[in-house]
Amino acid sequence: MAEITIKDIAKQCGVGISTVSRAINNHPDINPKTRKMVMQVIEETGFIPNNSARNLKRTDAKCIAVLVKGITNPFFSNMIQIIEEETQRNRYALVLRHVEAKEDEVDVALELEKEKRLRGIVFLGGRFTHSEEKLGKLNVPFIFSTIGVDISDWVGRIEFSNITVDDKLESEKMTEYLLSLGHRRIAFITESPEESIGRRRIEGYRKAFIERGLTAPEELICYVQEELDHFSMENGYITTKKLLESKESVTAIYAASDSLAIGVCRAVLEAGKRIPEDISVAGYDGIELGEYYNPKLTTIKQPVEEMAKKTIRVLLDVIAGREEHQQIIFPAQLVERESTAAIKE
Amino acid sequence: MAEITIKDIAKQCGVGISTVSRAINNHPDINPKTRKMVMQVIEETGFIPNNSARNLKRTDAKCIAVLVKGITNPFFSNMIQIIEEETQRNRYALVLRHVEAKEDEVDVALELEKEKRLRGIVFLGGRFTHSEEKLGKLNVPFIFSTIGVDISDWVGRIEFSNITVDDKLESEKMTEYLLSLGHRRIAFITESPEESIGRRRIEGYRKAFIERGLTAPEELICYVQEELDHFSMENGYITTKKLLESKESVTAIYAASDSLAIGVCRAVLEAGKRIPEDISVAGYDGIELGEYYNPKLTTIKQPVEEMAKKTIRVLLDVIAGREEHQQIIFPAQLVERESTAAIKE
Repeated sequence: MAEITIKDIAKQCGVGISTVSRAINNHPDINPKTRKMVMQVIEETGFIPNNSARNLKRTDAKCIAVLVKGITNPFFSNMIQIIEEETQRNRYALVLRHVEAKEDEVDVALELEKEKRLRGIVFLGGRFTHSEEKLGKLNVPFIFSTIGVDISDWVGRIEFSNITVDDKLESEKMTEYLLSLGHRRIAFITESPEESIGRRRIEGYRKAFIERGLTAPEELICYVQEELDHFSMENGYITTKKLLESKESVTAIYAASDSLAIGVCRAVLEAGKRIPEDISVAGYDGIELGEYYNPKLTTIKQPVEEMAKKTIRVLLDVIAGREEHQQIIFPAQLVERESTAAIKE
Repeated sequence: MAEITIKDIAKQCGVGISTVSRAINNHPDINPKTRKMVMQVIEETGFIPNNSARNLKRTDAKCIAVLVKGITNPFFSNMIQIIEEETQRNRYALVLRHVEAKEDEVDVALELEKEKRLRGIVFLGGRFTHSEEKLGKLNVPFIFSTIGVDISDWVGRIEFSNITVDDKLESEKMTEYLLSLGHRRIAFITESPEESIGRRRIEGYRKAFIERGLTAPEELICYVQEELDHFSMENGYITTKKLLESKESVTAIYAASDSLAIGVCRAVLEAGKRIPEDISVAGYDGIELGEYYNPKLTTIKQPVEEMAKKTIRVLLDVIAGREEHQQIIFPAQLVERESTAAIKE
C-alpha cells in the first residue's frame, strides 16, 4: 500500500500542510471547524501522522532532563512520576539521567545539554556547592527541586529557580517534637554537612536543642556512608548498626529521610529492641511506605505532589519567557504515627 | 574569550575533526595513543566539547524509550534505575514515559515514536493482548521485559524480544511452598487474568493445588482494583481489607507482588492479627524493601539486575543488527524469610 502522506491529507482537505499539522498537534491557532474536518479525513483515510509530518515541527522537538542523585530513594521515585506526568501533559519528553553518588551533577548536565535538544533541566538531589562559573555554562534554564538550596547565597548571581521546604525549620520541628517527648539522647542519621540537605537539617537539629538551652549531643550525629546512595535503606541500616554497637546511650533516632529511617528500624529490631517502647524512630519526607511500615513511621511530610507540579510549571514558564526564575518555599507537616513515643520514666 | 572549537583542537593535534570527535566519544576505532594525545590537548586548552562538536554526530542522536505501566511499583523503580545506567553506558538517552492503568501502552509507543528519534522501546508492565496489526505498526525494535509474555502465541508472527521469568512455574513454586507448610486456605491477591502477569501467576497458583490432588479455593482469589496501579501498596491494602471483612477463613495470603504484600501486611496488622503467627504473608519480585520490612517478607526473587541488563543488551544488539530478536526466560528463587510459618495445629 502506498503510504498516505500529510500532503495527501492537505490536498483532500483543501488546506495547507501546516494546517494539517496544526490539527494533528492540537495547536490553538486553528479554527475548530477546520480541525474537525481535517481530523475526520485523517480518520477516514487511516492516515497515521508519521515522521514526514513530524518533520514540519522538527525544530520543536524538545525535552526536559531530570537529573537524579540518589535514585533509589522512593521519595524521588514519586517526584519523578509526577514530573513525568506534568512534562508529558505539556508535550515535552522526559529524559531521565541518574547521577552516581560520586559524579558531579553539573558536569553531567553539561554533557547532556550537548546531546539533546534540551529545553530545561531539573536537578533532584545532590549537593549545592557548585561554582558560579560552572553553573553559568549551562545554556538552558534549570531548577533545583527539593534539594534545600539556600538561595540567599546566590542573589544577584547566577539565575535559576528553586523549589524547597525550609529544611532547617522542619528539621528543628522534628527535633523539638522528640525533645517534647522527653528524649535527650536523640541520634541523628544524616548525610554530611557538605551536602545542602545535610547541612540544613543538621542546623535545624542543633537549633532545637539550643532553643531549649541544651547542647546537641554531637557524638550522636552519625554520617551515612559517602559511597552509597545517601538516602538508601541500606545506608540507614549500616549507620545505625554501627551506632548501636558503639554502646552510646540512645532513646530516639531521627533519620534525615524516611528511606534511611526504614533501615534504622531494621537495625533497631535486629538488635532486639522494640519501636517505640525502647527506641523511638522518626523519618523525614513523608513517602507512602511510611504509612505501610510496621510500625507506621513518624515523619516530616513534604507536599511532594504540589512541589513536583510547581517544579515543572515554573520551569516551563521560564522556558517560554512568561515568568522570571522563582524561589518557592513550601511548608511541610509533622506527622505523628506509631514509631515515636514519650520516653519511659 | 574566543571560544575554542573542535577545529582548533584538530589543528593543534594535526588530526581530522572526526578523529577528535572519536577521541571525545571514546569511539573504539581510534588508536589509543592518538586518543591520549588528543585528550591531553583538550585538557590543556580547557576545551569543552560543545554543540559544534556534537553537530558532527547529530544524526547519531538517539534514544531508547521505556514505557512503564505501574510506575509506583518499587520493582520497576529498580528496573528503571539499572536500565538507565546501561542505556547511558551505551551512549543512548533514556526517555521515560509512564502509562496510566487505563491507557494502551502500544498507542503511547506509536505516539512517542513520532516525536523522537527513537531507536528502540522497552515495555515494562502492562497487559499483552495487543493486536498483531497494532504491534506491526511500530517501526523500531521493541522488547517486553518482566511482563510474563507467553511467547508461544507469537511465533512466526510479529518479531520482538522478551525477557521474563516463568511466571506460572514460579507462582506454582510459592503456592506449593505454602501448601507444604500445611496451609490450605491460601488467598491470592492478584491482578485479573486479563493481564499477562495476572493470568500466568493465577495458573501457577491453581496448578500447585491440582498437583496435590486438591482444588484451589476460587473464592480466595481476590482481584485488585482495576483503576489503581495494580501492584501498589494501596491496592494490596484495600483488597485485603475487603477479604478480611468478608469473614472467609484464611491462614495465608500470597500476593502477586511484594508491593501488594506490604499493603497486605498493613491490613492484616490493622485487623489485629499477627504475621506469621495468625496469618502468613508472601510476596513476589524480591524488592529490597522486603528485607527491611517488619517482618521480613518471604518472596519469589526475580534476578532484576541481570534481567534489566539483558534487556538493554538484547535491544541494542537488535538495533545494531548484530542479533535476531531473543526470548529469554530467567530462573527466579524462593526466598523464605520471617513472614511465613507452618500452620498451627
